[in-house]
Amino acid sequence: MNERELIDAIQLVVGAGAPGVRVGIGDDAAVVDPGAGDLVLATDMLVEGVDLSLESANPRDIGAKAIAVNLSDLAAMGASPRYALISLALPPGIDVPWVVDLFGGMRDVCEGFACAIVGGDLSSSKEFVVSVAVAGSVAPGSAVTRSGALAGDVLVVTGPLGAAAGGLLLSLSDDQIALTPDGRGLVEAQLRPIPRVAEGQFLASRGAHAMIDLSDGLSRDLHRLCRASGVGATLDASAIPVDPRLAALLSGAGSTPLDLALTGGEDFALLAALPAAGIDAVRTEFEERFFQDLVPIGRVTEALDVCIGDGEGNVDPLRDQGWDHFA
Amino acid sequence: MNERELIDAIQLVVGAGAPGVRVGIGDDAAVVDPGAGDLVLATDMLVEGVDLSLESANPRDIGAKAIAVNLSDLAAMGASPRYALISLALPPGIDVPWVVDLFGGMRDVCEGFACAIVGGDLSSSKEFVVSVAVAGSVAPGSAVTRSGALAGDVLVVTGPLGAAAGGLLLSLSDDQIALTPDGRGLVEAQLRPIPRVAEGQFLASRGAHAMIDLSDGLSRDLHRLCRASGVGATLDASAIPVDPRLAALLSGAGSTPLDLALTGGEDFALLAALPAAGIDAVRTEFEERFFQDLVPIGRVTEALDVCIGDGEGNVDPLRDQGWDHFA
Repeated sequence: MNERELIDAIQLVVGAGAPGVRVGIGDDAAVVDPGAGDLVLATDMLVEGVDLSLESANPRDIGAKAIAVNLSDLAAMGASPRYALISLALPPGIDVPWVVDLFGGMRDVCEGFACAIVGGDLSSSKEFVVSVAVAGSVAPGSAVTRSGALAGDVLVVTGPLGAAAGGLLLSLSDDQIALTPDGRGLVEAQLRPIPRVAEGQFLASRGAHAMIDLSDGLSRDLHRLCRASGVGATLDASAIPVDPRLAALLSGAGSTPLDLALTGGEDFALLAALPAAGIDAVRTEFEERFFQDLVPIGRVTEALDVCIGDGEGNVDPLRDQGWDHFA
Repeated sequence: MNERELIDAIQLVVGAGAPGVRVGIGDDAAVVDPGAGDLVLATDMLVEGVDLSLESANPRDIGAKAIAVNLSDLAAMGASPRYALISLALPPGIDVPWVVDLFGGMRDVCEGFACAIVGGDLSSSKEFVVSVAVAGSVAPGSAVTRSGALAGDVLVVTGPLGAAAGGLLLSLSDDQIALTPDGRGLVEAQLRPIPRVAEGQFLASRGAHAMIDLSDGLSRDLHRLCRASGVGATLDASAIPVDPRLAALLSGAGSTPLDLALTGGEDFALLAALPAAGIDAVRTEFEERFFQDLVPIGRVTEALDVCIGDGEGNVDPLRDQGWDHFA
C-alpha cells in the first residue's frame, strides 16, 4: 500500500460532506464552522501494548474506542461533539482492509454523536498508535470543569462501575466465564466504552458544579476533581454501584468487585458534583431520560481529605490509586 | 516520574492563561474562544525512527518541529494559529527534564505565532511519538485549499528549496561540511523548519487560487495540488530556487541540488497558484514585506500532465516522487 491509496480508502469509509464541514479530509487542514458557542478541544491517544493489543482487539473495536474515549472528554465538559482529527502510526503488517475497518469503527461511533471526521495524518512506525483530537461546542461560559465542586455537593455517577476492569481481567485470563453472556458483556464494556454525551449535557444543564469522566478509576479521578476544586470528599462504599456481573467473576480472586469499581478505570461513566438542593428531582428526571440510575455515592467536604465510609461509622482515607502510565 | 508530576512540570513550562483560553491544560478538555471566522483544524505526528532520531535531535528541536509542521498546515490555508493540543507517547528512559525541554521548544515556536498550548494526553510506549493538533481561524470563506488552481495561474514558491533534505543527508553522514557555517545552516533547516504563516496569509489576501505546504517535496506536493484542482502544470527547471549551499555539499554525489529541491521534502515553503494578472506587484510587495523572493517556477495548464522543462524547449514528465511513509 502507499499513502495515497490509503487516504483514498479512508475517504471512502468516512464519506464526504457533513454539516458545518467546508473542507474535509485531503487538504492541508480542514475548514469548518465553529458554531456559536465556546470551542471545546480534547485529545487522547491509544498505544499498542499499553492501551490495546492488536491480537485481542479487532480494528473496528479499536477505532470505536479511540473515538469514544475522546468524546467522553467532551461529555465531561457538557459539550456537543462536532469534529475529529485522526493521526495513525502504522507498523508493518497492517494493510488497507485493516485500516478501513478501523475507520469503520470510528465512523460508527462518530455518527451516533453527530461528529464528523475531517482530517488526520499517517505515519509508519514500529508499534501501532492512534491519536485522536476532537472539537466540540458548548454554550458560552457553560462548560463544566473539574474545579467547581463546593462543600455540601452530592457526588453522583451515571452508571455501574468496574465492568471494564472486569472485562480486561477476563480477556487476559482463559476463564470460561468469558464465554457466558455476562462475561461477554464485561469484555464488551472494556472494548466498547460508551461516551456519556447526552448525560453530560443534562448534568451541565441541571447545574453540575464539577464533572470528570472516569477513565482512570473512581479513586484517582475523584482525587483529581477534589484537588482541582480545592475540596475533599467522603464516599459511602455501600452506595457505589458495582457492576453486578463482577461477583461471579471474582469469587475466590484476590480483589473484590468494589476494588475494581474504585481503581479499575475505563468505565467512562461521569462523576459529577451536584448541588444538594433539588437532587431528587434531577435523579428522577435522569432516570426517565436515560433508563439508568444517577447514583449518589457521597458528599463534597470542606476538609481536604478524600475518604470512604463503610456505612457503619468507619471512615478510611481513600488512596489516590488507579491507572498511571508512568508509575 | 508519575503522570501528575509530569503534568505539573508541563504546566509550569507552558504557563497559564493566554488570550481566548477559558480552560487550559489540566481539565478533561480545553475551553476556548473560537474567534469570529471559520475554524481551521490540522494534525501532524512525528514518530521516532521515522521522522526523527532521539540520538541526533535534542528535545527542544523536536518540540519546535512538532509545532512548526502543524502551523505550516495552517499557513497553507492562509489561517492564523490559535490553539494546540499535544499527545505524547514516551518510551522508558525519558525523564521530566527531557519533557520540559520538549515543551520549551514547543512554547518557543507557539509564542512566535500567538498559539496557545491548551491541553494534551500522555502515554507510555516503546517508541517516542508526538502528535500535535492545531486549531486556527480564517475569515469566513477565505481559506485557500489545494483545489482552486486554474489554467494560466503562475506557480510560485516562498523560498529556496532542498536545504532540509541537504541537512538530513549531512546529519546522516560524517561529512566535515556539517561543521562549516553553511553545513550548520542546512542541518538547522531540517531540524527547525519555519512555518510560513504570515506569507500564507499574504498570498491568501492577494487572491491565491490554491496553496500547499512543501512537506514531501515539490514534485509530490505539486502533483497533489494538480490532482486536487483537476489541472496540470509545467515547471521551468532553471527557475526553481535551489538552496545555494547545496552545491558544495553534493559535489561528486549521485544526486544534484535540483533533485533535492524536487523530491527532498521538509522545506515547508509554500507553493501557491496565483492569477497571472498583477503577479509582478504581488512579488514586489512580498519581497518588501518578507525580504525574500516570491519565485515563479512555472504555470498551471489545462492539460493534466505535470511536466518540467529545461528552458531550452525540452519538456519531460515530472514524476510523482517524494516522501511516502508506506512506499
